Amino acid sequence: MEKKPVVVGVDIGGTNTVFGFVDRDGNIIAEDRIKTNHYSDIKDFVASLYEKIMEAYKRIESGHEIIGYGIGAPMGNINKGTIEHAADLPWKGIIPLSDILSKHTPLPIIVTNDANAAAVGEMIYGGAKGMKDFVVITLGTGLGSGFVVDGKLVYGHDGFAGEIGHTSIRPGESNRDCGCGKKGCIETYASATGLKRTLLKVMADSIEPSPLRKFSFEELDAKIIHDAALEGDHIAIRAFEHTGKMLGFKLADVVAHTNPEAIFLFGGLALARDLIFEPTRRYMEQNLLSIYRGKVKLLESALSTQNAAVLGASSLIWSLKEHQ
Amino acid sequence: MEKKPVVVGVDIGGTNTVFGFVDRDGNIIAEDRIKTNHYSDIKDFVASLYEKIMEAYKRIESGHEIIGYGIGAPMGNINKGTIEHAADLPWKGIIPLSDILSKHTPLPIIVTNDANAAAVGEMIYGGAKGMKDFVVITLGTGLGSGFVVDGKLVYGHDGFAGEIGHTSIRPGESNRDCGCGKKGCIETYASATGLKRTLLKVMADSIEPSPLRKFSFEELDAKIIHDAALEGDHIAIRAFEHTGKMLGFKLADVVAHTNPEAIFLFGGLALARDLIFEPTRRYMEQNLLSIYRGKVKLLESALSTQNAAVLGASSLIWSLKEHQ
Repeated sequence: MEKKPVVVGVDIGGTNTVFGFVDRDGNIIAEDRIKTNHYSDIKDFVASLYEKIMEAYKRIESGHEIIGYGIGAPMGNINKGTIEHAADLPWKGIIPLSDILSKHTPLPIIVTNDANAAAVGEMIYGGAKGMKDFVVITLGTGLGSGFVVDGKLVYGHDGFAGEIGHTSIRPGESNRDCGCGKKGCIETYASATGLKRTLLKVMADSIEPSPLRKFSFEELDAKIIHDAALEGDHIAIRAFEHTGKMLGFKLADVVAHTNPEAIFLFGGLALARDLIFEPTRRYMEQNLLSIYRGKVKLLESALSTQNAAVLGASSLIWSLKEHQ
Repeated sequence: MEKKPVVVGVDIGGTNTVFGFVDRDGNIIAEDRIKTNHYSDIKDFVASLYEKIMEAYKRIESGHEIIGYGIGAPMGNINKGTIEHAADLPWKGIIPLSDILSKHTPLPIIVTNDANAAAVGEMIYGGAKGMKDFVVITLGTGLGSGFVVDGKLVYGHDGFAGEIGHTSIRPGESNRDCGCGKKGCIETYASATGLKRTLLKVMADSIEPSPLRKFSFEELDAKIIHDAALEGDHIAIRAFEHTGKMLGFKLADVVAHTNPEAIFLFGGLALARDLIFEPTRRYMEQNLLSIYRGKVKLLESALSTQNAAVLGASSLIWSLKEHQ
């Protein structure tokens, strides 16, 4: 029997690294994950990841053959196969990820920004099918973005387009330190971590009782705040409102740059649905120039949180194959 | 003798409308202008413009033949041939410019954003030759922008990409009203008019004497402030410093969106050279994520202020012809 070719799609996030074996039609044959933040050394991380991939591969090897590795990671650079100064990952400086993985395998490896990978996934398999101009915003530990213009992913001159998570919300000083070394980056507000930070601020300003006052910063996550908001907790609702205000403000900038047909919100925070979409849409519209108002769709990603980046990352290898 | 084909390139600005007859190699055979702000009715404006074009055409008609009209205008929309809600032009609402001009001529007409036209001009005839990813910022009465990604101008889904002049400098209220109806748009700071507004603010805050205190707001222009700054006038220098701060802050956003190789500054305010480039570059670098620092060139347009948009607008017709 001829083996079916599959690509290993890998999504490296601040907390988890998810991978899957993806066939040409976007079916994920098998998937698994390892904890990103358990590895302080990148070589150990890559060795463990490769081992885990091989373990999973054994179970499907009789019918499938790996033809390459597509990897999405924060600050992933497609030109150089590196991860560079990623604020949300344990490894600092410039990480030659592609070189390190190529010690384990001779197959083609492509590295790109995780949000770029999600955008390609959305375009090929998700809600952006048939769209030529759209943006995907990933709201996880940090905030990532991937821009598609005229049907093609924007990489930019140095391969680093779409890092709007580190644009600032105002000139000069803001109080919020960002992992990137700057202050007031939008991801310090509009991300799962940003929501927690805003919750603490609201809690500090308010005297209202709330069950959330029982949780430590480390115990809190977007899901806990989401559940509290659904129960009508005012502090949680105000934290979502402020998060949407900051995100909506920045999305108005996104519209004025590339005038997309739609903006997709993706990742843990997007699962809060109306709690985040409603204020984001309201503040985006408020900040839009009249020519754009009411025209740009703010949509939920049509792919599951786990899948989009894995699918997108894998599709980079498929398109490489098809252009060869 | 066979007549040489020329395109009429038109650049509609808030104050002047400049046009020229451009041949395939980017030579401007003849040019002239009319005052935009003398016409409160768009039909009168188009009639006068067409008359002036025909007047100039008579002088070159023996050797040249017009093959089309390429027009750059603020809020110009290439999909619809309209100008929509342009804050800096005398005509409000949606102006069907292409339809109005087509009452005078059966030749092809293309309308686009003036800064988009300047970006195409820079790419074909100016300093962006050979560049695939760059941005042109026009600093005139307002602030316009044109984005080139992977060698192609970005139009966006509705034909309105590149209106960053109307992104705001911070969430919520700023004191500066913008002609577009919003507050705190970057063009209320980084433009010839913005510089005047900042000068007044600096003058209000300071007790330093300055010859500029003798000028009314209406008498002031970028050139007067520029000359005063060159003479060492502290108030003028601080106005440029603040203008550069605001512009540099926004250009850091531009970099994080599309990661260009270069950003070109173009238009009256850019003629102030170091006075505007130095603070803009400094604040841009300060606001950039480390992966971008020291990599993005901030350049003067290689085309004269008058020519770039005329050349760029004309080139739209040339590329139309070549794709037919």
